[in-house]
Amino acid sequence: MPRVSTKQDTKVALLEAGTEIMQEKGYTNTGIQEVLSTLGVPKGSFYHYFESKEDFALEIIRHMDQAYTASLMRTLRNPSLSPLERLRLYCQSSKENLADAHCRKGCLIGNLSQEMADQSEVLRCELASIMKKRKEMFAACIEEGQQLGEISNNFCPSKMAVLFCAGWNGAVLAAKTFKSVEPLDAFMDIMFDHVLKA
Amino acid sequence: MPRVSTKQDTKVALLEAGTEIMQEKGYTNTGIQEVLSTLGVPKGSFYHYFESKEDFALEIIRHMDQAYTASLMRTLRNPSLSPLERLRLYCQSSKENLADAHCRKGCLIGNLSQEMADQSEVLRCELASIMKKRKEMFAACIEEGQQLGEISNNFCPSKMAVLFCAGWNGAVLAAKTFKSVEPLDAFMDIMFDHVLKA
Repeated sequence: MPRVSTKQDTKVALLEAGTEIMQEKGYTNTGIQEVLSTLGVPKGSFYHYFESKEDFALEIIRHMDQAYTASLMRTLRNPSLSPLERLRLYCQSSKENLADAHCRKGCLIGNLSQEMADQSEVLRCELASIMKKRKEMFAACIEEGQQLGEISNNFCPSKMAVLFCAGWNGAVLAAKTFKSVEPLDAFMDIMFDHVLKA
Repeated sequence: MPRVSTKQDTKVALLEAGTEIMQEKGYTNTGIQEVLSTLGVPKGSFYHYFESKEDFALEIIRHMDQAYTASLMRTLRNPSLSPLERLRLYCQSSKENLADAHCRKGCLIGNLSQEMADQSEVLRCELASIMKKRKEMFAACIEEGQQLGEISNNFCPSKMAVLFCAGWNGAVLAAKTFKSVEPLDAFMDIMFDHVLKA
């Protein structure tokens, strides 16, 4: 990676390198020195950019979420697909990404929630607010599908979205542990062929 | 906690203290010194009992799983309850435990899987084998319910067990993040009123 120039560039580069490392290793296992080294940023300059490791993680979460939310919106509001097709596309492409990464890493938000929800109230609040926002995006898509008669009306959109997100996160965790996408397939089969089915 | 006496007692006491701390803080955040201190075991004697921190975690996982599996079997094979009632009892009592702990800690196996599946192949294999064993225990209970006509035959027991376990783990993660048992209620509503319903 080429050396970066301006202060803002360096900050963004640190956030992106930090995201990569933290997604695989988690918060505690991520060494600030390791992040600085990948960019050739001198040791000691970290605190010019971030107040603390916790502050660094907070900014990583926000930076990553911004890009992720934009991509999620493109999928969940894609006008050329029906709501059910959008949900299926989300699962299919997430599954492909996980398979490409050999079932490593998984979701940064899920990983950090598991690791840090009891360790840092600052991070927990940020993670909870992102999890809530994502759940609402899924609920809106499910509601649209219900209005079109394409998705079952058995449960309210919000409750279905909780099961959808929780089930998917749990299936990703199982996939990481088994190093196999099979749990994702089982989730999708029951979710699409039964729970969501109108 | 009183000082412990024999070598075997000390080892078990270290495993139990380690379980408590690791369940809340995870692997990396758990300090060996902290575990030794809670028992008044002198620093330096740790390696009389365990080869490494990884070996310590492996024994913690096995020790904890032994007790947990026994308790899970009592629930999932309880002859005085129907299979569906056993599954419901599992969810209810896990939910009460989580509420009593103010939605902290969660499941040691789930937490360590999230944190360590990409970091230690030794731990990942042990965690995967435990996750598989638990899934099979749930599948056996679901199969019994299907044979009695009490649980839906829409999907094979194994696939239903994957969704049940993954959905529950994901809901526990959401409960930890939101510090609320609401995600567990949403999971139970859809699971019992729809997915498992004959």
